[in-house]
Amino acid sequence: MKVAVLAPVAWRTPPHHYGPWEQMASNVAEGLVALGVDVTLFATADSHTAGTLAAVVAQGYEEDRTQDAKVVECLHISHLMERAAEFDLIHNHFDFLPLTYSRLIPTPMVTTIHGFSSEKILAVYEKYATSTAYVSISHADRSPRLPYAATVYNGLRVNDFVYTEKPDDYLLFFGRIHPDKGTAEAIDIARRSGKRLLIAGIVQDAAYFREQVEPLLSDDIVFLGPAGPAQRNQLLGQALALLHPIRFAEPFGLSVAEAQLCGTPVIAFNKGAMPELIQEAQTGFLVDNVGQAVEAVQQIGSISRAACRAWASANFSQEKMAADYLAVYKELI
Amino acid sequence: MKVAVLAPVAWRTPPHHYGPWEQMASNVAEGLVALGVDVTLFATADSHTAGTLAAVVAQGYEEDRTQDAKVVECLHISHLMERAAEFDLIHNHFDFLPLTYSRLIPTPMVTTIHGFSSEKILAVYEKYATSTAYVSISHADRSPRLPYAATVYNGLRVNDFVYTEKPDDYLLFFGRIHPDKGTAEAIDIARRSGKRLLIAGIVQDAAYFREQVEPLLSDDIVFLGPAGPAQRNQLLGQALALLHPIRFAEPFGLSVAEAQLCGTPVIAFNKGAMPELIQEAQTGFLVDNVGQAVEAVQQIGSISRAACRAWASANFSQEKMAADYLAVYKELI
Repeated sequence: MKVAVLAPVAWRTPPHHYGPWEQMASNVAEGLVALGVDVTLFATADSHTAGTLAAVVAQGYEEDRTQDAKVVECLHISHLMERAAEFDLIHNHFDFLPLTYSRLIPTPMVTTIHGFSSEKILAVYEKYATSTAYVSISHADRSPRLPYAATVYNGLRVNDFVYTEKPDDYLLFFGRIHPDKGTAEAIDIARRSGKRLLIAGIVQDAAYFREQVEPLLSDDIVFLGPAGPAQRNQLLGQALALLHPIRFAEPFGLSVAEAQLCGTPVIAFNKGAMPELIQEAQTGFLVDNVGQAVEAVQQIGSISRAACRAWASANFSQEKMAADYLAVYKELI
Repeated sequence: MKVAVLAPVAWRTPPHHYGPWEQMASNVAEGLVALGVDVTLFATADSHTAGTLAAVVAQGYEEDRTQDAKVVECLHISHLMERAAEFDLIHNHFDFLPLTYSRLIPTPMVTTIHGFSSEKILAVYEKYATSTAYVSISHADRSPRLPYAATVYNGLRVNDFVYTEKPDDYLLFFGRIHPDKGTAEAIDIARRSGKRLLIAGIVQDAAYFREQVEPLLSDDIVFLGPAGPAQRNQLLGQALALLHPIRFAEPFGLSVAEAQLCGTPVIAFNKGAMPELIQEAQTGFLVDNVGQAVEAVQQIGSISRAACRAWASANFSQEKMAADYLAVYKELI
């Protein structure tokens, strides 16, 4: 089977640092190659793949800001569309714009909807619901206005995450510093639990950081800034638990899967995809408020860290994701 | 011949007020209908045409700001592309994005390049130079990097512009208030000529207006704000001359053609398309600086206003433009 994987071109595939959509396009492409699929990855020219790379854009438009994003996007997409007949299937990770070429080509298209940046883009997805198969990244992220062929969870490279049997005694907040992610709630949970809290992530909302996070920093509430892959492994693995008190319906939550791969249970507010990512009382706790989260911290010793690793490996691995997508492709062809 | 005319969807076609690309798409469509061509105009749903209107976008995204421009653009373009086989030819007035669909459809495409918003978009035009025929709106606006099938000047509805034999005694600046358009130079020319100056246009550069225009306003240097069609006719027609001391290579200059249609000569800095729009010493004067412009004002009585009207009617009419495009289409089919 010849499959074209269409990555975004904001960042390199896989990304150097940030770039979740490019990361998943890479994990899908490499996972398919491992399953013996003939994969051509359409991505920036500095991208890496064990398949065949096809590129007309030198660098991501977020990495070389002299470029016009709209120009490189449409040149990148049309490059694939003009070669569509070479492939048995196109797997689109590039949001809605490629859909508008889909009725002009002979090749079936699977589109992973990594998220809805706005309610307004639904009009495009609705129009093309009959000419492309949609995959959601969680049941929670499905729009009632669209038909879906499947839910396929994001898959990670399991071996990149080191399992840690004996953790340190701190709690961890890992993610963007933003009200949606509940940084202030995490601080509250840690203080009321009498535990140390490490905070790692980029400051996305500067006013929120200045007003609701910074004044509470201390020897026990420590802000580390963003963490690279090596530090991430250590921070996630050695945490007693990941605190994930989100205030929005998160479509997936990569750090929740990553923590569990390291053996670390997750205490999350019960929103969005959290019930799909966490096995209640087995790999963490789903709670509704800070008080319940504090109780969950007291019970964290009841969680088997090996169970966290096993659950995440079974459900959120690159191999599982690639196999699930292959089943979707076969259904479609 | 069945022709699809693709207008932008920033504004209604024709526009209520501003919207030069939509205006030209309308003039082409209506001019072709008058020549007996079977025209389908792809534009916003509130647009008007004597041909057939095809629309999936209710209102222009500049008129209903709740819309996402990228969403309505790609839905609008793909609507035409999916119907491409119904037409003998597509005439694209929508910049570069439609080009990226052109190799996926069976229908030849003519693209009028109304201007280059940035050097960066040239990459798209270069890629599609073999699959669409480019038309420039003046010889001056041609990029040396592109092949062109023809130059076709913008064409106006001649009867919308009333010829005025006996003007008033004022000079006119008509256009955006911006350094490119030379508002300050126009004031200088008027003062040194001892003539009254009326200034009509939207303030595009507020700092420039505040610093270099506003302090010089007086009983003789009058700022009127933007002018609608009725006032435009009166202002253009009753002017002794239009001052057009541009500081950039203007690709066309609609007001220059409009003034001449009203019988009003134009004194312009010799840049961009000005030598193509003005017949030197017959319908105006091409000058290099303010001093030469002042001399030209002294000689303005030597210009025949009837000659201005005749020249502009012969070269910048909707009828001429439609006939010129029809010749381009026939060459291509």
